[in-house]
Amino acid sequence: MPKITLSKIDTRAPKGLDKEKTKHKTNAILSQLEELQNLLFAEGKHSLLVIIQGMDASGKDGLIKDVFTSMNPMGVQVKSWKAPTAEELSHDFLWRIHQHTPSKGMIQIHNRSHYEDVLITRVHQWIDDKTAKKRFAAINQFEQLLTEHNHTTVLKFYLHISREEQLQRLNERMQVKEKMWKYNENDLKESELWDDYMKYSDQAFNNCNEVPWHIIPSDQNWYKNYLVANTILETLQSFNMKFPGMKK
Amino acid sequence: MPKITLSKIDTRAPKGLDKEKTKHKTNAILSQLEELQNLLFAEGKHSLLVIIQGMDASGKDGLIKDVFTSMNPMGVQVKSWKAPTAEELSHDFLWRIHQHTPSKGMIQIHNRSHYEDVLITRVHQWIDDKTAKKRFAAINQFEQLLTEHNHTTVLKFYLHISREEQLQRLNERMQVKEKMWKYNENDLKESELWDDYMKYSDQAFNNCNEVPWHIIPSDQNWYKNYLVANTILETLQSFNMKFPGMKK
Repeated sequence: MPKITLSKIDTRAPKGLDKEKTKHKTNAILSQLEELQNLLFAEGKHSLLVIIQGMDASGKDGLIKDVFTSMNPMGVQVKSWKAPTAEELSHDFLWRIHQHTPSKGMIQIHNRSHYEDVLITRVHQWIDDKTAKKRFAAINQFEQLLTEHNHTTVLKFYLHISREEQLQRLNERMQVKEKMWKYNENDLKESELWDDYMKYSDQAFNNCNEVPWHIIPSDQNWYKNYLVANTILETLQSFNMKFPGMKK
Repeated sequence: MPKITLSKIDTRAPKGLDKEKTKHKTNAILSQLEELQNLLFAEGKHSLLVIIQGMDASGKDGLIKDVFTSMNPMGVQVKSWKAPTAEELSHDFLWRIHQHTPSKGMIQIHNRSHYEDVLITRVHQWIDDKTAKKRFAAINQFEQLLTEHNHTTVLKFYLHISREEQLQRLNERMQVKEKMWKYNENDLKESELWDDYMKYSDQAFNNCNEVPWHIIPSDQNWYKNYLVANTILETLQSFNMKFPGMKK
């Protein structure tokens, strides 16, 4: 697996890629996903855990809306992780996560994830390097457990934006009435820690890449949507699913 | 509140109602719902608990697919209730339900619900009349709690089909490859208890009608979808929601 260095990865689509054509492709993929998700649910054999990480305003919520809205909500669950509660903190960091892993047939989306426990916690030095290292090992084992013991495929997406794009989007949130509710006073302060976030993201991704990370250039939503939808499509197709017979 | 007697309520759309026109109306409603659900989530003040009850093959799953697929899955959660586990049975019957009530801004769908605890349990005489009566009171208090203490609006839909329609649909499940997985050997046995189910449904609905039941004629999916979507639309509109300002 090649080493991930976010600062060397482009945040935009390759030059010359046609936006409208790509959007058409994405729509075709979404129709296929609708069918495949129905089959995933009916067959009840596999499951998907989709992890979405990214800096503030990298388009995590938008991705969920754009890619997963066409799926039957009976088979799709979204969990948006916030700062842990007192009860959650009185357990190991994977305790609350484990409760929201997908059962067979389901697609579970994690909007942020256990990777926050080795990202924001390190940027703010709430945990030391030794603890971080132990957590990397625990994360690898945890993802292995899901994969091997419940036919769960873990798909990890990092929505990669440039700092310029982030600042522009945060600025928009302060101006547009329909977006203000998403703005948090703290966002600009966190943004100033950009370089630390990149450094610790590199470390986390390279230490926890047994289940591989997909780094998604995300300055343009149409390209982001296409890449994620296509990765999910290829994953579901690889299951070679079929409708089961009658239950006895 | 007029007394509910299912056997006297039509299972079909009023004669002369135009199917294609109604479908167009439903589509227009679904677009509005998409916007209103976004607003519900953004405002974070109200929440909806949508309870869907109905006999086997009454179209509960289909309703969820048809009406809620157009909504952002970040704001919609579906819980399909099955027979209680040993752990769930070691608590009161509302314990497991309470854990899946909606937080502010969310739409929570219950595919079947705590009403099973006063329906199938009575048809099979797992509980006596005295216990049922106590449960009715507990259900009324529970629904009141959600309404008064978390701005939750509880919408209760009974999908009302004729027995002929049910038998036809169960038969289809035995024949069509894509539907076989939904068929359960037990379904036909349960269907023979139709009259008991109607009797106990009448009792449950009339004893727990403080939050009113919506009886939805459901032999035709297009009419069912229209009625449910329209009720949800009117409910969300009645909240007079607006986008909140910036969070501090």
